[in-house]
Amino acid sequence: MRQFRVLLNAAVLCLAPLVAQADEEAVTSFTLENGMDVVIVEDNRAPVVQHMVWYRAGSADEPKGASGVAHFLEHLLFKATENMESGELSATVAANGGRDNAFTSYDYTAYFQRVASDRLELMMQMEADRMRNIRLTESDITSERGVIIEERNQRTENNPRALFGEQLNAVQYHNHGYSVPIIGWMHEMQTLGMDDVMDFYNTHYYPNNAILVVSGDVDPEEVRSLAEKHYGTIPANPDLPDRVRTAEPPQNAERRVVFRDARVAQPYVSRSYLAPERDPGDQEMAAALTILAEVLGGGQTSYMTEKLQFEQQKAVWSGAYYRGASLDDTTFDVIVLPRPGLSLEETEAAMDDVLEQFMVDGVQPDQLERIKMQLRASQIYERDDVNSIANRYGQALAIGLTVEDVKAWPDLLKAVTEEDVMEAAGLVFNRDASVTGWLMQPEEVTQ
Amino acid sequence: MRQFRVLLNAAVLCLAPLVAQADEEAVTSFTLENGMDVVIVEDNRAPVVQHMVWYRAGSADEPKGASGVAHFLEHLLFKATENMESGELSATVAANGGRDNAFTSYDYTAYFQRVASDRLELMMQMEADRMRNIRLTESDITSERGVIIEERNQRTENNPRALFGEQLNAVQYHNHGYSVPIIGWMHEMQTLGMDDVMDFYNTHYYPNNAILVVSGDVDPEEVRSLAEKHYGTIPANPDLPDRVRTAEPPQNAERRVVFRDARVAQPYVSRSYLAPERDPGDQEMAAALTILAEVLGGGQTSYMTEKLQFEQQKAVWSGAYYRGASLDDTTFDVIVLPRPGLSLEETEAAMDDVLEQFMVDGVQPDQLERIKMQLRASQIYERDDVNSIANRYGQALAIGLTVEDVKAWPDLLKAVTEEDVMEAAGLVFNRDASVTGWLMQPEEVTQ
Repeated sequence: MRQFRVLLNAAVLCLAPLVAQADEEAVTSFTLENGMDVVIVEDNRAPVVQHMVWYRAGSADEPKGASGVAHFLEHLLFKATENMESGELSATVAANGGRDNAFTSYDYTAYFQRVASDRLELMMQMEADRMRNIRLTESDITSERGVIIEERNQRTENNPRALFGEQLNAVQYHNHGYSVPIIGWMHEMQTLGMDDVMDFYNTHYYPNNAILVVSGDVDPEEVRSLAEKHYGTIPANPDLPDRVRTAEPPQNAERRVVFRDARVAQPYVSRSYLAPERDPGDQEMAAALTILAEVLGGGQTSYMTEKLQFEQQKAVWSGAYYRGASLDDTTFDVIVLPRPGLSLEETEAAMDDVLEQFMVDGVQPDQLERIKMQLRASQIYERDDVNSIANRYGQALAIGLTVEDVKAWPDLLKAVTEEDVMEAAGLVFNRDASVTGWLMQPEEVTQ
Repeated sequence: MRQFRVLLNAAVLCLAPLVAQADEEAVTSFTLENGMDVVIVEDNRAPVVQHMVWYRAGSADEPKGASGVAHFLEHLLFKATENMESGELSATVAANGGRDNAFTSYDYTAYFQRVASDRLELMMQMEADRMRNIRLTESDITSERGVIIEERNQRTENNPRALFGEQLNAVQYHNHGYSVPIIGWMHEMQTLGMDDVMDFYNTHYYPNNAILVVSGDVDPEEVRSLAEKHYGTIPANPDLPDRVRTAEPPQNAERRVVFRDARVAQPYVSRSYLAPERDPGDQEMAAALTILAEVLGGGQTSYMTEKLQFEQQKAVWSGAYYRGASLDDTTFDVIVLPRPGLSLEETEAAMDDVLEQFMVDGVQPDQLERIKMQLRASQIYERDDVNSIANRYGQALAIGLTVEDVKAWPDLLKAVTEEDVMEAAGLVFNRDASVTGWLMQPEEVTQ
C-alpha cells in the first residue's frame, strides 16, 4: 500500500504540467429554440464520440405510489418506436461498432451511445425518434416488468447491504423522494402498467426537459446543425411542470436503524448526516464537504483509516462519502467495518471518539495538499475519457448546475482551506439530522 | 387510587344488567341513489339530534406536497357558499340553541351539529349546501391560512411532545401518508393556496364519497325523506378516484429516534409497533390488540403499571395504546415515564424486561374478565351520548367498516381469550417493525 501511494504521487507529479492545459476544455453550449440544452466538448484525440441525452426526470420525480417507473421507462425506451423495431436501436449501434446503454438516478435518466464519430447523425436520428415516438405493447409492459423485478431480486432482495441502505434512506428523508429506492419498492413495481409509464413519458420526455451532450472528435458547428435538424424539430411541451419536489420538514431528531439478516457476513456501522448539495453559483460548502470526505475516509492515509485501522486496529475498513451532485439535500456518510469480535456498540463508540478527536485535531496542511493533488490527478485521468467528460456536464445540467459551475468546480476544490473543511465538518456533523445504522446477524430478540 | 378502583368495579357491576338491552341499538342504514351512505340511530331519550356528514378524505389522502390541505379545507367550509354568508352556518346553529364543529383525521373529515331535533332539516339544508357550493375568496385563503399556521404553532411547535410524535410517525411509515402530520408540515402549509384547496374539494366532496349519520330523537323514515330531499339531489362524482393509498414496503429494520428539546419537563421512552387495524369482517386480531393494550397499560391495575410503578418504582406513569379504527396499518404503542433520576436507557431496559416477563406470565383470567367488564361499561356510558353513537358509526364507515362490523365489535371483544391476547402480543411485538423513541433534554453532543 505504501509503495502504491508513492507511485501515485509520482504519477501526480508527472501529470502536474498538464493541469493548466487540461483546464481548458473546449466546451460549446447553447439552447435550441424548443428549449433543449446542448453541451459539446470537442476532443480530437481519438475518432470517437459520446452522444448522450439526459432527461431532468429521475426516481425522485415519480408520482406517489408509482416508484420505479422512471427506471421502468428507461428499459422500455429500447422497445419499438414509430420508426424502429424493438431492439433495433441497440442492434444498429452494435452493427456500427459502438456500444449503448442508459441509466436512471434520483434526479435524471440518461441514454448514451459511444461510436465512431462519423456515425453521430445516425445516433441522433434514433435518439430523437424515441424521445416522442415510442410505441409500447401490453406484452412489452409485462415482459419488461418481469425484467426489472428480477433486477430488484438480484441487486436488492438478495443483498442485505442494499436492503439496509433502503431502510436508512427511508429514515433519513421524511418527505422527499430520495426516501424511495431508485429501482422502486417491490410492491409498487409489481403494479406498474402502461398508464404509469406513458404518464411519466408524456410528462417528462420533451426537448425542453432534456440536455444533449456530445463529447469527442466533433466539430461544434456541425453538431449544432445536426442537433437542430434532429432535435430542434421536436415541439416543446408548453405544459412542462415546474420541477418542484416535496421538501423536508426540519430534521430535529437523531435516528437509528438496526437491520438484522442471516446473510450478513461482515457487520458494520454507518452514519449518514443530511448535507447541502452543489447549488448553482454556490458550490463552496459542497467543495469543502468533498474534501472533508477525502480527509476523513478517502483512502489509506485518511484520518479514520489511520486511527481505526492502523493505530487502534478496531476496524478492517472505514470510509467517508459525500454525494454532492444532487438536486436537493444530500447526505454525508461514514462507515466502519469492525475487526472480528468487536461489537457494533464498541465500533460505534470508537467511530464517535475518532470523529470527536478529529474536531480537536483538525486537518493537517500536508494531508490537505496531498488530497488536492489526488483529486486533480483523478480529474485529469477523467479527461482522457469522453464518457466521463460527457457524464460530468450532463449530470451537472440535469441537477440544475451550469457549464460555468462545472468549469469552476476544480478551482473551488483547490481553494478549500483547512478552516473551510473544519467549518463544513462543524456544520454537517449534526446528530439531530443523522441516521446511524447497524447491519448485523440476527440475535435473540424477545419483544 | 385503590379506593377509586373499587368504586369503578362497583359501578360496572351495577350496570351489568343493562348490557343486553343496550346491545340493541336502533340502527337504520341505506344508500341514496347518488351513492351517499346514511346511518340513522334512533334514541328518543332526549329531544336532541346529532347530525354529521363524514367524508372519506383525510390527511392521508392528500397529494404529495400539499400536507395540511384536508384540515385547511375543513376550516374553509365555514366560509361563504352560494347561499350562505361566511360564518352564517355556525351563527344559525347557535341562534337555534345548538353547537357545531368539525374535525380532520388521517382517514376522514367530519362536520357536525347538535341541536333540538325539530331543527334537523335546517342543518341538512346548510350542510348539503356546503358540500358542493363553497365560494372562497383569496382573502379567505390568506386569513384562514394564518389561522391554521397559528394552530400549528400553538399545538405542535410549542409542544416538544407533539414534535417528537411527528418524528416518530415519520420514521414508523416509509411510504404511507400516516407519516405526515394531519395538520401538515409547516413549510407546506405556508404554500397552500386556492388551487390546492379547490382540487381537494372537487375531488372528494361529493355524496358518493360521504356518509350521513343522524342519531337521536328522530323518526328514520322522516330522516330518509329529508336526506333524499337535501342530499339525494346532489349529483355524484362519476370520476371519484379509488381510495388507494401508497402501501408500506416490508418493515424489516428496528428504528430509534432521540428528540432533544430544552422545553422537555418530563422525559420518556416510547415504542410503537406496526399493527393490523380493524378490517371489514375481520376484526378478531384488532379486538385482541384492544384487550392487550388494556391488559398491559390500560390503568392502575394493568401489568406494566403494576410492575413499573408499584413493584419496581421505576416509572411515574406508563401506558399502552392501540388505535384500531384506521383504514390502513396502524400502531400499537407503549410508553414509560421514568421516576426522577432514572436514565432513559435504564427506563427502556426496565420496559423491555417487563414486556419480556409478560410473554412468560401471560394474562390472568380475573384481569381479563375485569377489563372486559370495564370495556362494556364504557360502551354503555357512550350510548347515553348521541355524539358518541354517531361518531362510532361515522368513523367506522369512513374507514371501510360496515354497520354490521360496528354491531359485532362488542361481542368480538367479549369473545377474546387469554390465548388470543398472547397470540396478538406475539405477533405485534416485532422489533423489526418498531420505532423506539426517547424524548429528553439536550445533552452535550460533539458530533
